[in-house]
Amino acid sequence: MSLNPNLTAERPTFVTHLECSMTGERYEADQLHGLSSVGRPLLVRYDLDGVRAMAPRAMIEARPTDLWRWRELLPVRRTADIVSLGEIETPLVPIPKSGGPNVLVKDEGRLPTGSFKARGLVMAVAMAKALGVTKIAMPTNGNAGAALAAYATRCGIETIVLCPEETPEVNVREIAAQGARVYRVNGQIDDCGAIVGRGAAEGRWFDFSTLKEPYRIEGKKTMGLELAAQFRWKLPQAIFYPTGGGTGLIGMWKAFAEMETLGWIGPERPKMFAVQASGCAPIVRAFEAGEEHAERWEDAATVAAGIRVPKAVGDFLILRAVRESGGTAMAVGDPAILKAVDDCARQDGLLMCPEGGATLAAYREALRTGLVDEDDRVVLFNCATGLKYPMPEAGIALDRHGEIDLGGL
Amino acid sequence: MSLNPNLTAERPTFVTHLECSMTGERYEADQLHGLSSVGRPLLVRYDLDGVRAMAPRAMIEARPTDLWRWRELLPVRRTADIVSLGEIETPLVPIPKSGGPNVLVKDEGRLPTGSFKARGLVMAVAMAKALGVTKIAMPTNGNAGAALAAYATRCGIETIVLCPEETPEVNVREIAAQGARVYRVNGQIDDCGAIVGRGAAEGRWFDFSTLKEPYRIEGKKTMGLELAAQFRWKLPQAIFYPTGGGTGLIGMWKAFAEMETLGWIGPERPKMFAVQASGCAPIVRAFEAGEEHAERWEDAATVAAGIRVPKAVGDFLILRAVRESGGTAMAVGDPAILKAVDDCARQDGLLMCPEGGATLAAYREALRTGLVDEDDRVVLFNCATGLKYPMPEAGIALDRHGEIDLGGL
Ligand SMILES: Cc1ncc(COP(=O)(O)O)c(C=O)c1O
Ligand SMILES: Cc1ncc(COP(=O)(O)O)c(C=O)c1O
Repeated sequence: MSLNPNLTAERPTFVTHLECSMTGERYEADQLHGLSSVGRPLLVRYDLDGVRAMAPRAMIEARPTDLWRWRELLPVRRTADIVSLGEIETPLVPIPKSGGPNVLVKDEGRLPTGSFKARGLVMAVAMAKALGVTKIAMPTNGNAGAALAAYATRCGIETIVLCPEETPEVNVREIAAQGARVYRVNGQIDDCGAIVGRGAAEGRWFDFSTLKEPYRIEGKKTMGLELAAQFRWKLPQAIFYPTGGGTGLIGMWKAFAEMETLGWIGPERPKMFAVQASGCAPIVRAFEAGEEHAERWEDAATVAAGIRVPKAVGDFLILRAVRESGGTAMAVGDPAILKAVDDCARQDGLLMCPEGGATLAAYREALRTGLVDEDDRVVLFNCATGLKYPMPEAGIALDRHGEIDLGGL
Repeated sequence: MSLNPNLTAERPTFVTHLECSMTGERYEADQLHGLSSVGRPLLVRYDLDGVRAMAPRAMIEARPTDLWRWRELLPVRRTADIVSLGEIETPLVPIPKSGGPNVLVKDEGRLPTGSFKARGLVMAVAMAKALGVTKIAMPTNGNAGAALAAYATRCGIETIVLCPEETPEVNVREIAAQGARVYRVNGQIDDCGAIVGRGAAEGRWFDFSTLKEPYRIEGKKTMGLELAAQFRWKLPQAIFYPTGGGTGLIGMWKAFAEMETLGWIGPERPKMFAVQASGCAPIVRAFEAGEEHAERWEDAATVAAGIRVPKAVGDFLILRAVRESGGTAMAVGDPAILKAVDDCARQDGLLMCPEGGATLAAYREALRTGLVDEDDRVVLFNCATGLKYPMPEAGIALDRHGEIDLGGL
């Protein structure tokens, strides 16, 4: 039973084919795909003329505001394949004190399993279901695995999740609680990825690594669609995105292009800021060196586990989007990240995840160096609920039987 | 900056006065109040004829779907007093495998600070701000304190929070992270309440205990308003609510009455199920004994901290609503609670809090004993995100340098 027409009404779909993001080589829709023949991500292409004719912007605006209102721009063809846990539109929360008068935090921690990974995985799992996949494996820094576990469990797909040993404890437990088999590997996310890749090559499971299947990016694209609707089709001046695999940044950039083709937005684009941690900043290094690809970052280390990604298969897509947008790639240190989290919670009452904190730290730095202006409308992505991360101990003991100095409380 | 007209447009308000829930004695609006002169909760009354004339249902339906769309039925008079962290409408998530085909979980964990306490506290803090309060103290089992800390911090009100020593660790830390001073008391929530009451009597702070100020219930009322809108003005047949202080149950019952007066819904009501834990079931005991009030439950103990409330000041309001609705008060044991949480996560991919698990356990029991039928449309309240609660250890170690038996994963 669902009361949401976005989840029950059949709607026309417009996927025409898939395309290699590097060479443009064409791939059939409605078939199971991993990377392209040159080992790069595949992008889903739509008949946008068809969308323009059949799904005017105003029609979509009249629907309930969840992720599935965008179905004409998404790959899932049949309503029955949608596996939903309630993918609401996430709110934009002002943080006037710790950020500034024009800073809005897109609070992605409100999504199922407490992170924006739900966007990508709800889409990828629906497509896996539609295409008959029965067993999935994934390397993850935590949140993606939790989202995968929840959605796959819900539709009976078996899942194996491999985490680096430094993955936050909550994530590992959450993944297991939601029915996946979870392992801790003494290495980084790409070490986990290598094991997953080996099993996939042997035909043991389907590989759900970031950007190695084509549909997570379509799910993440909805961040761009949602922002456009929330800003009434005039995008903000800058977007700060904590960048690991970069799916969200690439996805938003794709969404903006599709919406421009549809005539929903104009040619103006936000400056895209790819935010990384100083202890793992391969994209920043490549950006600064003017490279098209990013080399692996050795000995990656940061409190912001979600952006501890030494090597991203979509590196060139991230770099391309950042450069086209006139934005930049920036690294911030762990102390600045933790201070930003603390300031935001203590001053504005919003508890961000460390990756969200990184975007606030980067915004502050960008303001200081003149890359953005205080008058610019800015969106920071808080990609997960702060409740998943370690917080300092607290709670002073008070004896109810003793003398309590109420004035001292 | 906010892009949401619910938070920026001035709108007419309709509060006429407050009223003692026991005696009907009248109190002035727009003044600071605690309990009534006989020590019972005050209820806010509205000019519903005015609402009917000025705010037709269709007008409200056309607004963005957050808590503030209901402003004509809420006490906050001036837009400037609204302190918001993004109070979205929470989704209804089907749990077909662990619940049944007609069971929907209202997933309140999506609200700011990860629980439905945000509804009550966003309202109470706005009113405290409007009425000039500068220092607040509160006894809490955790979630209410976290919501208070966040909202009070956001508008610069000082807060002191007292928790029983068995409060979940995350809650205590979260409260501190969000800028409140937090204490752990060796006792239950009413022991904490006694200390808060003493300080309030000495004029040290304003007492924000459940139902001791009149506005939390108005915030919780929005659960009833939202449900009506989500069910297209035909309420479900049964609602299972994990009952501690009972604010939400009382609030929904009040919302239903107001909506009927407005002509928004008919006279049909859901059966209200007040769910408690076997280790702390004062309302169940009073319900079964046919009492109007509930005696204190000694030695209260349950994994579901939110409903570990030995004595509720609104006991008679809970009992009255449950009886009028034709529902019942039910206790479920901790093993059934934990099993329900586990089943729901493992089968439907939804990680509930223990209190949410209690409602699923109670639903199963009600189904077994014929209190509800499988065909009944049922709503279970998952009042907080499951991420706040301890989960079993997980994560099997895997050595990336070793021989990995991929078939064994
Ligand atoms: C909280 C959080 N922020 C940011 C990221 C990075 O996301 P992306 O892979 O899209 O760059 C992740 C990924 O794990 C994450 O969990
Ligand atoms: C998760 C959770 N569920 C239920 C309750 C009980 O709510 P009420 O006081 O409205 O009965 C609480 C209160 O602390 C809670 O935190």
